[in-house]
Amino acid sequence: MTPTITAFERSPDGGRGQARDMRVRWALEEVGQPYEVRLVSFNGMKEPAHLARHPFGQIPTYEEGDLVLFESGSIVFHIAERHAGLLPEDANARARAITWMFAALNTMEPPIMERATAVILERDAAWHEQRLPLVDDRIRKRLADLSRCLGDADWLDGAFSAGDLIMVGVLRRLNRSALLDEYPNLSAYVGRAEARPAFKRAFAAQLAVATAAATG
Amino acid sequence: MTPTITAFERSPDGGRGQARDMRVRWALEEVGQPYEVRLVSFNGMKEPAHLARHPFGQIPTYEEGDLVLFESGSIVFHIAERHAGLLPEDANARARAITWMFAALNTMEPPIMERATAVILERDAAWHEQRLPLVDDRIRKRLADLSRCLGDADWLDGAFSAGDLIMVGVLRRLNRSALLDEYPNLSAYVGRAEARPAFKRAFAAQLAVATAAATG
Repeated sequence: MTPTITAFERSPDGGRGQARDMRVRWALEEVGQPYEVRLVSFNGMKEPAHLARHPFGQIPTYEEGDLVLFESGSIVFHIAERHAGLLPEDANARARAITWMFAALNTMEPPIMERATAVILERDAAWHEQRLPLVDDRIRKRLADLSRCLGDADWLDGAFSAGDLIMVGVLRRLNRSALLDEYPNLSAYVGRAEARPAFKRAFAAQLAVATAAATG
Repeated sequence: MTPTITAFERSPDGGRGQARDMRVRWALEEVGQPYEVRLVSFNGMKEPAHLARHPFGQIPTYEEGDLVLFESGSIVFHIAERHAGLLPEDANARARAITWMFAALNTMEPPIMERATAVILERDAAWHEQRLPLVDDRIRKRLADLSRCLGDADWLDGAFSAGDLIMVGVLRRLNRSALLDEYPNLSAYVGRAEARPAFKRAFAAQLAVATAAATG
């Protein structure tokens, strides 16, 4: 059964692959699962039909028969559990890959989200320019730990996994800052992930939506 | 094999059950799995032996034979996968329970962590009093969505699950603010979880550590 995901009708990032449907598209491409996309407007995201799918009125969602999921982490995990290619078969390696998914979403992403929130919602606040370096330093602390842990390995724990997919999805939110450049092995790690054919197909698909919205 | 977890030697919350080992203790109590605890000092958390277990130098960690995990979400999931009681057997219900785990950690907790960070690290900043209400409003937005979704149900999706355990663990971080009181059904939800015998045993165990540290 072909699953249906939701994505922004007009993504705030203009197709740079920063919206969270990108993570789900990428996972589906990695495992070779075709999918359909329902585009949702900002107004539509707050309407009852979408809130029934996503209690927090966001994207992405995932529908497959009578199963409805939200949260990119959960959807990627669901895909990874049902298809080969995103989680190792060895039980311990699998548990470690899942650990990296949670680490990306609950340890790495929060300060990065805090930065995005500040830049979007507190840009005109009196304190913004003074406060942003504090937030950046919190991000640097996490990046330094991750950089040390990755070392010169290609991926976080042996083979590429859903843990790398989510971590790279999170790190790419820093693309418009210079923070990632301070950690060359992390920049190279993101670059390695972006070179994967599945990433490229997913990126092209979300860019096509943005291009159509801009010219439509 | 009895797993070993790590916890703060001196928890910053003084035993109010807000440190993240509480979530792991609670999960282990729910499934009836005995465990051992290794206490770690703030200096010890930054030493190589602990960094080898936890790249970000935090607690909790989980050791079971040659498996070493970090991230409370991942550890709770690992426990839930291996024991009955924290995830439904029905595949769709299981996927939805996992979705609530991710929603708690990646949608609900980030603004709550942002508040905690502000209160701890920006307390003396010139902007703190002016900025805190903005952060609180971001939390309220999430709480309102969760409150509407929970309605008058006991748990988020039928029976109590790891999704409720993680969500309550996150919501309890608001215990020292009045925010949760604004949503009576969420306060009652947290209260229902805190009344579970497994929660009480886990709470008592972490409180005993804090009490021993204070009198030791």
